[in-house]
Amino acid sequence: MKMQPVKGTRDFYPKDMAVRNWIIDGWKEVSIRNGFEEYDGPIFEHLKMYQIKSGDEIVKQLFSLKDRGGRDLAIRPEITPTLARMVNQQINSLPKPIKWFSVPRLCRAEKPQKGRFREFFQWNIDIIGVDDVVADAEVIFTTIDYLKLAGLTKRDVKVKISSRKLLASGLQNIGIPKNKLDSLYTILDKYDKMPLDKFEEFLSGYVKDKDTAKKILDLMSIDTLSQVPDILGSNKDIEETMQELAELLDLLEKMGVKDYCDIHPGIVRGLAYYTGVVFEVHALFGELRAIAGGGRFDNLLHEFGGPSVPATGMGMGDCVLEILLKQKGLINKNVTQKKLDYFIALADKKYLKEFYEIITEIRTRNYSANFSYKQAGLSKQLKEASSQNAVKCIIIGSEIEDGQIALKDMNTGKQKKIDKNTFFNELKS
Amino acid sequence: MKMQPVKGTRDFYPKDMAVRNWIIDGWKEVSIRNGFEEYDGPIFEHLKMYQIKSGDEIVKQLFSLKDRGGRDLAIRPEITPTLARMVNQQINSLPKPIKWFSVPRLCRAEKPQKGRFREFFQWNIDIIGVDDVVADAEVIFTTIDYLKLAGLTKRDVKVKISSRKLLASGLQNIGIPKNKLDSLYTILDKYDKMPLDKFEEFLSGYVKDKDTAKKILDLMSIDTLSQVPDILGSNKDIEETMQELAELLDLLEKMGVKDYCDIHPGIVRGLAYYTGVVFEVHALFGELRAIAGGGRFDNLLHEFGGPSVPATGMGMGDCVLEILLKQKGLINKNVTQKKLDYFIALADKKYLKEFYEIITEIRTRNYSANFSYKQAGLSKQLKEASSQNAVKCIIIGSEIEDGQIALKDMNTGKQKKIDKNTFFNELKS
Repeated sequence: MKMQPVKGTRDFYPKDMAVRNWIIDGWKEVSIRNGFEEYDGPIFEHLKMYQIKSGDEIVKQLFSLKDRGGRDLAIRPEITPTLARMVNQQINSLPKPIKWFSVPRLCRAEKPQKGRFREFFQWNIDIIGVDDVVADAEVIFTTIDYLKLAGLTKRDVKVKISSRKLLASGLQNIGIPKNKLDSLYTILDKYDKMPLDKFEEFLSGYVKDKDTAKKILDLMSIDTLSQVPDILGSNKDIEETMQELAELLDLLEKMGVKDYCDIHPGIVRGLAYYTGVVFEVHALFGELRAIAGGGRFDNLLHEFGGPSVPATGMGMGDCVLEILLKQKGLINKNVTQKKLDYFIALADKKYLKEFYEIITEIRTRNYSANFSYKQAGLSKQLKEASSQNAVKCIIIGSEIEDGQIALKDMNTGKQKKIDKNTFFNELKS
Repeated sequence: MKMQPVKGTRDFYPKDMAVRNWIIDGWKEVSIRNGFEEYDGPIFEHLKMYQIKSGDEIVKQLFSLKDRGGRDLAIRPEITPTLARMVNQQINSLPKPIKWFSVPRLCRAEKPQKGRFREFFQWNIDIIGVDDVVADAEVIFTTIDYLKLAGLTKRDVKVKISSRKLLASGLQNIGIPKNKLDSLYTILDKYDKMPLDKFEEFLSGYVKDKDTAKKILDLMSIDTLSQVPDILGSNKDIEETMQELAELLDLLEKMGVKDYCDIHPGIVRGLAYYTGVVFEVHALFGELRAIAGGGRFDNLLHEFGGPSVPATGMGMGDCVLEILLKQKGLINKNVTQKKLDYFIALADKKYLKEFYEIITEIRTRNYSANFSYKQAGLSKQLKEASSQNAVKCIIIGSEIEDGQIALKDMNTGKQKKIDKNTFFNELKS
């Protein structure tokens, strides 16, 4: 019987794995240099953990299962609930601020399409215990630090920044009742996802007052903070959140990444737990959904049974990112074909003992080495060395009786004899 | 509501993650230097993939789930079926031999106990397309190469080698019918897992003839190949498999790892798909189950709908291994506490711009850097630098007006002024 993979999953053959490793290694490198420490949780949690605050979209997409005791579990669709659970468990002993990152494997039962799989990897960074916009700036800086490392420039990507607080106070100021805010956010979240005329129609079905609807449309299209009061008016709450966003932009300027960022009040984020600054990273080309998103979630730890601790973070999936990096030629440029350091060939079976000794010695010195499993002649072995992308080939023949080996540069084709001990002494350094 | 993790799963806080990363990095390093390329598959597959050849124990322990189309899926309990599926899919285009490794996250609904969790990581190496004992030797060599790298010596661990072929021909030679072999293997697999008198009783319930039972008991206790004919007698099949095992031991000798290995006919392995050489790695202290196991599975690809292609491989889980490494003090010795390269302190708020510029510059040069999120005095900032294990601290004060910074060695406490450009020039090299 021929086996098939499950629809919407990916097989990582070595060439695909090299791409995945390049992306994930970049995430890890940037996390570490920005002072984040790695953590991880289990692949499944109790189902109810995702039914509280993750938002309807995620709940609908859960892969749920039962354990043998009949308990309801779910494969994790995001890691933030696990983070909240883990931090709550050790809240008193963990040194603050908590700066953690993770690269979890996540599953969502989405309809597979371009840039969406049912299983993916997501880089997460979070700062917990800091009630200051400097932590939001650090999260955004770290996000951009990775995009730059991968080779994406300010002409390729844009970080669009908004604030749930600004939206809440501003929308109330133009007449939206507080209890209608959450459902309006769901509508605003569609602004970037449909043609403008369709969005207008969609919005007018929800916001009956034409003047208010016009203001909301205007708000969606601005890209600087100074335009906000003209549309939303002003009061103490609006001024405070404006001040906070201005401070955030000032910090991003000082950190040297302001040119990657814009104010974009239409960003609201799908997840239900955000409370303050929110942001998304969008490509400036193509038609894909956001590369990354994040924001402040000051209530989540408390809602998960812990104390009130402020928190802010970011998540970036590998699927959309990989498409963009491929389109920009950055994968071809950066992911190198596998190379083998040494291929060891045997010219005469008499020297089988020395042959294996040398292979073992090279591997123990942490250079990659292979040899042919076939009992073939030298020219066939050299052919195999080429097909394995060997950088150099060591040939063991009668010279070994004088302590010598032949070293062939597979690139130039040049071959020289070298004393075995000299070779290993040079290899060490 | 206070959230709990699922029983039998592990949370990896940064200190635990450091241990996991040290183990997995070692697996990867050894795989690469021995010429294996990394691959991975999805976390879930169609349920039926595990119901064919994985053996009863694994089938009972599956975490199964349904997708939205009602299809039966299972979280992978092992990666070998995925490997067989992936190789079959591209069998014609993949260069041979295929030398692949993977470090999959696996789940089994086992009863959690010491060294057994319901979720774990397992190093897998496989060589596909080589019908020669040299491939089995490579797999065993690579396994030992890791054990040595981790610091386990021949006094700590032993690779116990047997052969399904030897058992099949030898047991038939002493009167066990062919159709009883599989059920007898299940019994022999318990030899190491119960007291000898209990095993004798268990065996006698199955093998009624006392003389045959005695021979089987004798077979279980030997540790060299030369003792085999005295017990099992001899014929062409026995001689051939004896010859193959002798060749394997000779190769392991040449590769310099023979002193880690013993012949141990009692090793049969639980998985149903093994066809030739089988082996397990056991600790020579403690009471834990095998650290690793593997062997030849020449029929699996064909049974999964592909052509007949020979294959041999090994799997090593992280749970038992971690306990052993901890007992030997190798984790304390090798897993270092997280260090921060630089902590940046600000002596005067006037220089906030220079402060952030320096932080960004250090991070961009790939050194890890943090700073205090609190608007605190210098001594409090230095205290935070200590608590974050910073190696060095950079203090930005009025000297920056002359292009200078203060550099404090957090170990010696010594502090010196240095030109900012000199500092960065030295950092680069």
